[in-house]
Amino acid sequence: MQDMTLVLFGATGDLAQRKLFPALYNLFLDGKMPDSISIVGLGRYYCSNETFQSKVEKALRLYSRRAVQTSGLQDFLTKFRYFSFNATDRGSYLNLFELIKNRENELGIPENRLFYLSVAPRLVDVITSNLYASGISQTQGWKRIIVEKPFGSDLKSAQQLNDTLSKAFCEKEIYRIDHYLGKPMVQNLETLVLANPVLESLLDHKQIANVQITASETVGVETRADYYDQAGAIRDMVQNHLLQLVMMTALHLPGEVTPKDNGVKKIDIIESFRPILKEEVYVDVVRGQYESGVVLDMPVAGYKEEPGVNTSSMNDTFFAARLYIDNTSWSGVPFYIRTGKRMEKKSSRIVFEFKDKLKESDALPTDGMSPNLFMLEISPNESVSLKLNMKDPSSNRFDPVYINFSNNSEDHPEAYELLLFDAMLGNTAFFAHWKEVELSWKWIQPILEAFQEDMLPLHPYPAGSSGPEAANQLLLSNQFSWW
Amino acid sequence: MQDMTLVLFGATGDLAQRKLFPALYNLFLDGKMPDSISIVGLGRYYCSNETFQSKVEKALRLYSRRAVQTSGLQDFLTKFRYFSFNATDRGSYLNLFELIKNRENELGIPENRLFYLSVAPRLVDVITSNLYASGISQTQGWKRIIVEKPFGSDLKSAQQLNDTLSKAFCEKEIYRIDHYLGKPMVQNLETLVLANPVLESLLDHKQIANVQITASETVGVETRADYYDQAGAIRDMVQNHLLQLVMMTALHLPGEVTPKDNGVKKIDIIESFRPILKEEVYVDVVRGQYESGVVLDMPVAGYKEEPGVNTSSMNDTFFAARLYIDNTSWSGVPFYIRTGKRMEKKSSRIVFEFKDKLKESDALPTDGMSPNLFMLEISPNESVSLKLNMKDPSSNRFDPVYINFSNNSEDHPEAYELLLFDAMLGNTAFFAHWKEVELSWKWIQPILEAFQEDMLPLHPYPAGSSGPEAANQLLLSNQFSWW
Repeated sequence: MQDMTLVLFGATGDLAQRKLFPALYNLFLDGKMPDSISIVGLGRYYCSNETFQSKVEKALRLYSRRAVQTSGLQDFLTKFRYFSFNATDRGSYLNLFELIKNRENELGIPENRLFYLSVAPRLVDVITSNLYASGISQTQGWKRIIVEKPFGSDLKSAQQLNDTLSKAFCEKEIYRIDHYLGKPMVQNLETLVLANPVLESLLDHKQIANVQITASETVGVETRADYYDQAGAIRDMVQNHLLQLVMMTALHLPGEVTPKDNGVKKIDIIESFRPILKEEVYVDVVRGQYESGVVLDMPVAGYKEEPGVNTSSMNDTFFAARLYIDNTSWSGVPFYIRTGKRMEKKSSRIVFEFKDKLKESDALPTDGMSPNLFMLEISPNESVSLKLNMKDPSSNRFDPVYINFSNNSEDHPEAYELLLFDAMLGNTAFFAHWKEVELSWKWIQPILEAFQEDMLPLHPYPAGSSGPEAANQLLLSNQFSWW
Repeated sequence: MQDMTLVLFGATGDLAQRKLFPALYNLFLDGKMPDSISIVGLGRYYCSNETFQSKVEKALRLYSRRAVQTSGLQDFLTKFRYFSFNATDRGSYLNLFELIKNRENELGIPENRLFYLSVAPRLVDVITSNLYASGISQTQGWKRIIVEKPFGSDLKSAQQLNDTLSKAFCEKEIYRIDHYLGKPMVQNLETLVLANPVLESLLDHKQIANVQITASETVGVETRADYYDQAGAIRDMVQNHLLQLVMMTALHLPGEVTPKDNGVKKIDIIESFRPILKEEVYVDVVRGQYESGVVLDMPVAGYKEEPGVNTSSMNDTFFAARLYIDNTSWSGVPFYIRTGKRMEKKSSRIVFEFKDKLKESDALPTDGMSPNLFMLEISPNESVSLKLNMKDPSSNRFDPVYINFSNNSEDHPEAYELLLFDAMLGNTAFFAHWKEVELSWKWIQPILEAFQEDMLPLHPYPAGSSGPEAANQLLLSNQFSWW
């Protein structure tokens, strides 16, 4: 890996402490760092390098998946410098440039610069322009920029944001983080099929009745009402994470598999999404909002009672939809997606339900039988499982059994670790390409508008449930049910 | 279920105590008994009904998989009568007949009689003839006879034994026990495929590279040297259990599956076994004999040092073979079978190894990859598992993972329970048909003769190992290895 400078905007923020510093440390422990790296943390408040380094150390002790080791720790921490910074002040950028160049000279490293923007969306514009204007982003080496979500709040704002970034960076220099693409199980999708000939026949799309993608959370809006009451589940989870999961799933299933660049092929998938007309959103989409209830044995407030939420809010905390991919492989196979806060259980998973040929043939009594499923759990645990019907030898009834592999190992890299590593290497495969983002917003746009214009009901659901009944009806109308 | 009399020859023997009484008791607990049943236990020594009933109770307390319950116990035990019996004395049969008829009258049950022969093979002839001569087996209801292994010691003796049985019973009245056919996982083979459309594509024989059937034991010859030193692994395990497993496996895989009577179809399979010529046995068969070694951390003696074994014995305690089924489905797919005493581990299982398409395509680095496997463990635990290749996200190397369902429940019926129940119901599906037995012996016969004439080496192997190296070579010659 080439030596480089990593400039981290938002180094005193929550994401840096919880995810980025620990990710860097674990990469360091694995020897997955450049031999020489200059890391510059930026924040609004004054802080000495020493204090910053001890903040980094504290973050590691709190959040690193592997215990902090005395050996090597100082070596790791001395890579960090802190710079007190005002994003809207031109002078700040000139001083930052000095610091970057000094460190490059000091360490003898080339002008490879990776910018990580962990900042409020409104600052992306000013930072990008100033990186360019100040000359920081005009390097002799490579430059790359990592951008956190949200990437816009609708099609237009996303296009504006992209135009802004494009002034200083070309597409292959822009790394749009979608941390779902960093989850080991999602990254393993391609391998699963390519490395297991047996899955090619198992997951032949001709045998798949439907695909279900769920991302449910038990938490409520927490302290993020300012953002969330505007965004809703549709912007927070669906436009980015769930649609990326649909693309990855459809892409890596047999028939679609070729070991090509993900970016190119994912676009093919989302281009084949059947558009949803604004007038017909109510047919394929269900939105919901949680009421008070009991989650994991704790009584919790309804969404409208949450601090910072408008008491008459029509915001969606639950979203479910049926979508179709109109290409040769997936024609006629519905994809069901859903996400919600204050659900019964925290779980992100992909479930393939197989066609039930037996019902047609009537060869056997089907008492107790249920469809075969292939399930990939993405988080909180990673697991692969296959649901089969077995006969209970004493009762002669069918009993479903789950054959499954579970990986609860603490030792697995976190999404940010894998993604930071890829960005440092220059591997864009697991980042969202602009075309994907743009097409996602295009697909979502009529739904956003239908929500805005209240063209479909907002279904209440009790906290701690599996969402509104209307989401079950969505599948029942095709004789399916959620797994 | 119809009321009946069960006459148990060998009621003071080991099998009765360990397996048959507990099986009957557990069927009783499940309500899987006729409303009225007369059970008559026969043995050589004198014993009162009361003493016999308390022996039965003792056996239940020692060996029943479910705890003995006070409620109903007397009801169960009073079904039993004991009769002191000399199998070679005609008078004994007349007295037995009296007892049977008296109990039938007493209980008001029809003349349905099930005879269970848990006796030395040499007694089968005299018992069968006398059952006929005395009139016991000429009933107004149905009659059935259950015969334990061994069913002959070669083709000729098996034919003689069958002729003897046929004097008094027709084929559909003869229940030849092969307790492997009573194992829940073996009985589930048919269901597995019929009830799981997904397995039809997974186990498509076109994708299967080979099938491996293993039945390994950790025990040595124990106290059975008299019998075993004559029989060897080939008669004790291969001719019956392993060949039945091959038939069941080949029968129930996709392509062969139709919900017909097992008896008929298994014959089709064994008729397609490619014959092994005596002169070529050495190519496809490996025999071995254990030497001293360490099994489960205990030092143990070699076979020739075992009590009762001839010190120059050439008996086989290990057997491995490659066989082919020359029908449309299985053409070109080798079946490897092996069994041995004093092996590393106790395990009976069926493993399907899938073709490794990747090796041909070279699309991915295959570092750490291994073939996909589908495994059915029959005993000591029941499990279904699928071996997949997953990429370790930190090392980017392939790591095999096993996705599996394990059933270690004590609550599962034992083989004898399922088989006795079937015999009482009159269901012959999981018993060995004469044609199967005869064809097994026919296939085995050249191997028996090659062994007899020392036409192939007897490979020594250390106790506690996985058998002789020659058994590995058998697979290596096809670029495979045992799983």
